[in-house]
Amino acid sequence: MSVARDEALRADAADPLRALRHRFVLPPGRIYLLGNSLGALPVAAPAAFDRVVREEWGAQLIDGWNAGWYDAPVVLGDRVARLIGASPGEVVVADTTSSNLMKVVHAALTIGRRTGRGVVGYDAGMFPTDIYVAESVAAATGASAVALTFTDGALPADLSPQLAAVVISHVDYRTGRLLDMGAITTQLHARGILAIWDLSHSAGAVPVALDASDVDYAVGCTYKYLNAGPGAPAFVFVRERLLADTVVLPAGWFAHREPFAMAAEFVAADDIRRMLVGTPPVIASTGLAASLDIFDDVDLRELRAKSLALSDLFVETLAVARAPVQIVTPPPAAHRGAQISLRHASAYPVVRNLAARGVIGDFREPDIMRFGFAALYTRYVDAYDAATALVDVLASESFRDPAYAERTRVT
Amino acid sequence: MSVARDEALRADAADPLRALRHRFVLPPGRIYLLGNSLGALPVAAPAAFDRVVREEWGAQLIDGWNAGWYDAPVVLGDRVARLIGASPGEVVVADTTSSNLMKVVHAALTIGRRTGRGVVGYDAGMFPTDIYVAESVAAATGASAVALTFTDGALPADLSPQLAAVVISHVDYRTGRLLDMGAITTQLHARGILAIWDLSHSAGAVPVALDASDVDYAVGCTYKYLNAGPGAPAFVFVRERLLADTVVLPAGWFAHREPFAMAAEFVAADDIRRMLVGTPPVIASTGLAASLDIFDDVDLRELRAKSLALSDLFVETLAVARAPVQIVTPPPAAHRGAQISLRHASAYPVVRNLAARGVIGDFREPDIMRFGFAALYTRYVDAYDAATALVDVLASESFRDPAYAERTRVT
Repeated sequence: MSVARDEALRADAADPLRALRHRFVLPPGRIYLLGNSLGALPVAAPAAFDRVVREEWGAQLIDGWNAGWYDAPVVLGDRVARLIGASPGEVVVADTTSSNLMKVVHAALTIGRRTGRGVVGYDAGMFPTDIYVAESVAAATGASAVALTFTDGALPADLSPQLAAVVISHVDYRTGRLLDMGAITTQLHARGILAIWDLSHSAGAVPVALDASDVDYAVGCTYKYLNAGPGAPAFVFVRERLLADTVVLPAGWFAHREPFAMAAEFVAADDIRRMLVGTPPVIASTGLAASLDIFDDVDLRELRAKSLALSDLFVETLAVARAPVQIVTPPPAAHRGAQISLRHASAYPVVRNLAARGVIGDFREPDIMRFGFAALYTRYVDAYDAATALVDVLASESFRDPAYAERTRVT
Repeated sequence: MSVARDEALRADAADPLRALRHRFVLPPGRIYLLGNSLGALPVAAPAAFDRVVREEWGAQLIDGWNAGWYDAPVVLGDRVARLIGASPGEVVVADTTSSNLMKVVHAALTIGRRTGRGVVGYDAGMFPTDIYVAESVAAATGASAVALTFTDGALPADLSPQLAAVVISHVDYRTGRLLDMGAITTQLHARGILAIWDLSHSAGAVPVALDASDVDYAVGCTYKYLNAGPGAPAFVFVRERLLADTVVLPAGWFAHREPFAMAAEFVAADDIRRMLVGTPPVIASTGLAASLDIFDDVDLRELRAKSLALSDLFVETLAVARAPVQIVTPPPAAHRGAQISLRHASAYPVVRNLAARGVIGDFREPDIMRFGFAALYTRYVDAYDAATALVDVLASESFRDPAYAERTRVT
């Protein structure tokens, strides 16, 4: 066993967060580095799902609405709020990230229209669904959308005075770059532009300070670092001062001030419930509650420190071995999330070959490999072994085996 | 024991569908007549949820996307299609009923705009969220919305030539009235108007013939008669001939022709996947699959015949006892769904008093009591006992006890 691997094992033994790993189900014999895509299953989640299904749906039936289901989107929202630097009442759990982004883009354009601003901008390199949502909402509402090219994480200098809002990814899904939320939001506000942040790749991985950064709107995913399960509902944040002016598309009954009055006229709830639309996803929210129980016992700064150390160990192990890959993620801690992205001309077969060796990363077009370092359940020895496996694959060129060339639909 | 109750028991003994009841978990000591609000738990569902949570999320992690999750919305949609007279490829399971209605209202208005039609009409008495969605989508897109008053289930005669589409409930949530889908759709088409049907209170309860009625768009709920669990995802139907012209708001990555190409430009899928938006609700769809397994073994015409007979027994028992309630639901079988609605000045305390006696119906503003006859798990003796309990409550006037006057938030 190498000295380096021993050091990784010693780091695990000294890790104050090491016990958290036991609160997750992890596949035996594999190193799972895709918490940035789909978080691992909390050990407590299966029993929680079973309880909701049997004891709430099965036994309580419609009485469940009075016994917690009705309040769950707000209760869970308040719990997520703590992780993203928001205040109680600013976050609600509902729908998908895409749907929530539509709501806030529409709301921002509605506010912008009052001052003659009819354009929503977006980071040109961001996750495509955000682009599609911004473009489609703009097209449907008589506004327009424009791609903005960020350079080294900075806003373009020539922002149009027509911009009502800009949609930005806190951490880039491909490169892993972390943007300076406070500075960018301040720059946007100086130009009278609302800031909409997508936290899908930062919530639960990086301390987020929405209120301190004076962010206007934010959306995010719960099935990545927040470990809520595949297709779990997303969240949406509205800065308290904007709530009264926030008009949601579409208006739906759960956003009504009195949903069960069954009034023909829509009157939006005064509180964060106005971001809801249809019936909340009762069962689907169960995994999030189980995962938040774990986060309740975690200091996010400690989690962040470990995640950076894991990433550093992974990158350093590659560097020591002179692995022939380009490291895409910016090295400074202030400029990266919990993911390391590498570029290689054969990225796809390399990722598949690694998976065959039990190291699970993924591929993103055109030539990117991604490895997430979810500090709740990833060990230092995992980071070391994954890097070593990658070095081996690249050295052996076994990835050139045609068996690894065929692409599956989803990676 | 009364002769009438004996007859109900004999009807149960002779019921060809009686074995289906054993495939549901029903609360002991209660008569549950709210399958129209939240369907009962299929016996097989808890194990199915446990399998998805442990074996798919927990053990497969992201490989689940290649092992069924990706295709589930379409696979489940095809299974729902069979129950609503649609063809494979015309239905997909996604999001909420409200969100799906937004998609099709927006799509219909986009089509209408080509011929200068910029108005969406809706049934003035329909479920409020449908009204809110129609109004809010119209307002956001520069169109307009108009309430249409149906008289005795018939369209108003003076339909505006500006109408692009009309949104109609197949079965009214308050009155239980069933509309003539074929006739109304034909009338709308004769005026160049698209027909959008909300099947929330008919899917799984009444045979629906979307293709035979030449319906353009439809949406519906899966947690009522389709027993998919609280907050389960909804479905959306697009007539095959309209698919290529259907523009969805918002555009999202799962609707892209190649979601994992991560292209900056949105190109809608050619097939029903274009009705998707964000990541599909993997875990939340599990209850629907378990319930559809039961429907696979059912002839919907038999189910409908039993549901009508249950409703008849309930109404006749009330009539024989001269119960002082007004029956709101139209008597002819062709004009009602699987629900009987009664009007009473003290409807709310009566419903609560009935619940205290183990008979679960619900209340809708201002003075309506609703009782659903989900034929998969409701017995004739349940219909008889429920009616008898209601007769007793009304006769004893025990509902005037102040303990029954306070309203809970959700009934």
